[in-house]
Amino acid sequence: MTIQQHKIIPIPEVEPRAIIPNQNLRVPGPTAIPPEIMQAQAHQMINHRGPEFSAIMKRVTLRLQYFFQTEAPVLTYPASGTGGQESAIANLFSAGDHVVVITIGNFGDRLAKIADIYGLNVTRISFAWGEAADLTAIEARLKELPPYKAVLMTHNETSTGVTNDVQTLSALVHRLSPDALVVVDAVSSMGCVPLEMDAWGLDVVFTGSQKGWMVPPGIMMIAASPRAWEAQKVAKLPRFYFDWTLARKQLEASWQHPTTPPVSIFYALDLALEMMLAEGRDAIFARHLRAGEYIRTRAKAMGLQLLADHQYVSNTVSSIYFPEGVDGKGLLSALRKEDNIVLASGQGQLQGKIFRIGHLGFFTQADLEQVMDTLEKRLPEFGYRR
Amino acid sequence: MTIQQHKIIPIPEVEPRAIIPNQNLRVPGPTAIPPEIMQAQAHQMINHRGPEFSAIMKRVTLRLQYFFQTEAPVLTYPASGTGGQESAIANLFSAGDHVVVITIGNFGDRLAKIADIYGLNVTRISFAWGEAADLTAIEARLKELPPYKAVLMTHNETSTGVTNDVQTLSALVHRLSPDALVVVDAVSSMGCVPLEMDAWGLDVVFTGSQKGWMVPPGIMMIAASPRAWEAQKVAKLPRFYFDWTLARKQLEASWQHPTTPPVSIFYALDLALEMMLAEGRDAIFARHLRAGEYIRTRAKAMGLQLLADHQYVSNTVSSIYFPEGVDGKGLLSALRKEDNIVLASGQGQLQGKIFRIGHLGFFTQADLEQVMDTLEKRLPEFGYRR
Repeated sequence: MTIQQHKIIPIPEVEPRAIIPNQNLRVPGPTAIPPEIMQAQAHQMINHRGPEFSAIMKRVTLRLQYFFQTEAPVLTYPASGTGGQESAIANLFSAGDHVVVITIGNFGDRLAKIADIYGLNVTRISFAWGEAADLTAIEARLKELPPYKAVLMTHNETSTGVTNDVQTLSALVHRLSPDALVVVDAVSSMGCVPLEMDAWGLDVVFTGSQKGWMVPPGIMMIAASPRAWEAQKVAKLPRFYFDWTLARKQLEASWQHPTTPPVSIFYALDLALEMMLAEGRDAIFARHLRAGEYIRTRAKAMGLQLLADHQYVSNTVSSIYFPEGVDGKGLLSALRKEDNIVLASGQGQLQGKIFRIGHLGFFTQADLEQVMDTLEKRLPEFGYRR
Repeated sequence: MTIQQHKIIPIPEVEPRAIIPNQNLRVPGPTAIPPEIMQAQAHQMINHRGPEFSAIMKRVTLRLQYFFQTEAPVLTYPASGTGGQESAIANLFSAGDHVVVITIGNFGDRLAKIADIYGLNVTRISFAWGEAADLTAIEARLKELPPYKAVLMTHNETSTGVTNDVQTLSALVHRLSPDALVVVDAVSSMGCVPLEMDAWGLDVVFTGSQKGWMVPPGIMMIAASPRAWEAQKVAKLPRFYFDWTLARKQLEASWQHPTTPPVSIFYALDLALEMMLAEGRDAIFARHLRAGEYIRTRAKAMGLQLLADHQYVSNTVSSIYFPEGVDGKGLLSALRKEDNIVLASGQGQLQGKIFRIGHLGFFTQADLEQVMDTLEKRLPEFGYRR
């Protein structure tokens, strides 16, 4: 090869930094955060190996255990929710292990894809996007299958707005296959809707700071049951960054992290957990339930069709079909540019067909009313005729 | 197994959140950040799939290419610097590949350890902690070795305060083994001291936001040469979270990220790069050079012994031996508690033997003078007799 000698890369021409207007951000993550949590980040850095950081990490970890409802240590990583998926797989399994992935949308598919990439033998049990995992169908399928090490599933499927009944699914797996682990992606459910890791017999649960926690993206949290820790001991897939053993060792030794944690996001999470405790877990769950019901009631009153309209519909994300003849792209763009309301488009096979409203973490009833009132006003401009 | 039914995890008793005093933070990362960068984080979240985020990501990426001095796309991940090490290894190699790791300290050792864990055939070329990689010894050793796919090394070894001459090392590798890749951990050097990725023929270079960039921890940046991208195509190690292909595809399609990026840290990085350009790359390098010289001159004038005192001594991190008879732990603790000056202890085999002063990223001459003046005043209280 020839080495390019002294080639100089010039300073690039770029658009100047622009002021971003305050928006009514209603995508299913990153979610809007309270002003005091924004501000909590604006503190000087501290030594992540010092007592000030350990105090934060200890408080955050113990409070996360309460929200996870687990006695297991909750480990934190600088990562997105996808890092939680990879962390679960890399820590639990060896190449060739048979696992079952129940998928009802994009993030269930991603779990299966990562398991494929890591060389696992993956059985997918898939349901149509918009549907929840069907217990009868799953029971029948699981009974046919050769032994499996684990069943992986999403709790709330962010791409469709459906919340699987993981409590019942977990009980089913434990009944049919007592040694199989239950792995739950709770990225967009935890802290918003009931989830009790230990009582429900969940072996691995993970979530991300940018969803129900009222915190910017940057921290992934994950916990593992004693059974999962046993499985981790013999699991041979390569891992270092996401290795639970390293994180647990450092946590138990000093309430610290094996590598450098995202300090300013920890400032935010520390305050957010305090605010969540002040509101109360049950009150938070009730607020999300009301939000889901409000969005669905308003959507139906406008004549809109929900992607999911059954007992498993999500109380953190609502998916709504663009009505026939409506210019969906134009609608979302106008809402963003003219009304400062930001909604999410569909993912994968639902792209262009649905839009999604996130109602998780920090929101008020007024925020949601503004979204639905404006939507009602704007829809006719983009071709909606009832 | 028995599922614990309805076991309730109570709200934990914790120490209340405390106000953290402003400190003169002189550890080699997280580094102190300017007030305007702290404040830049305190903005509402935005949609990471929207045009506002794409504008930030485009500006940040182009400016990072300038600081990396590369035409290659600079990919960003929610991760620590260790994530960069794992990302490089997982993307470039297949199990059994022979690689050479040049190590002069803790982070070189970590590179080798991750390569071991991923099943590579690793030859270590190790030097005593405090020394730089010796070119003659490396040339002799490389000539004896069977073919190798890559040579991995740290640029600045954060654990010892030594900066390898990667320009010459890279030229040596290319001369001896034209097909081998050169992988450089530039976590605590990039943006502080000269590094020219393309001109020096470096194939993979990575760094972390919490070092020279005046930004909180949370973003890892990595770039790969066309040769490295070719290697990545055939590399079989499992990867998804750190897969470069996914990140590049999303970057090229929309200036976005395949998973959720740490939005508030991007706000900080966006402003930091603007401030770094205003100061100028050469001026930044000169400031770090002056800082290194100042710390070393003052340390020697106090009669202290540097771990490294040769042409490869680092201008971003200084390692100083605790003098015989000095209570090192007490000294660092008093500096922190009474003077609000935070220095770092030694790592691994140097624990208890040295302390480290970080002088990278955001600092003024006055910050460094306060450290050295206070150290001079405090040392006799902890047993120092010249």
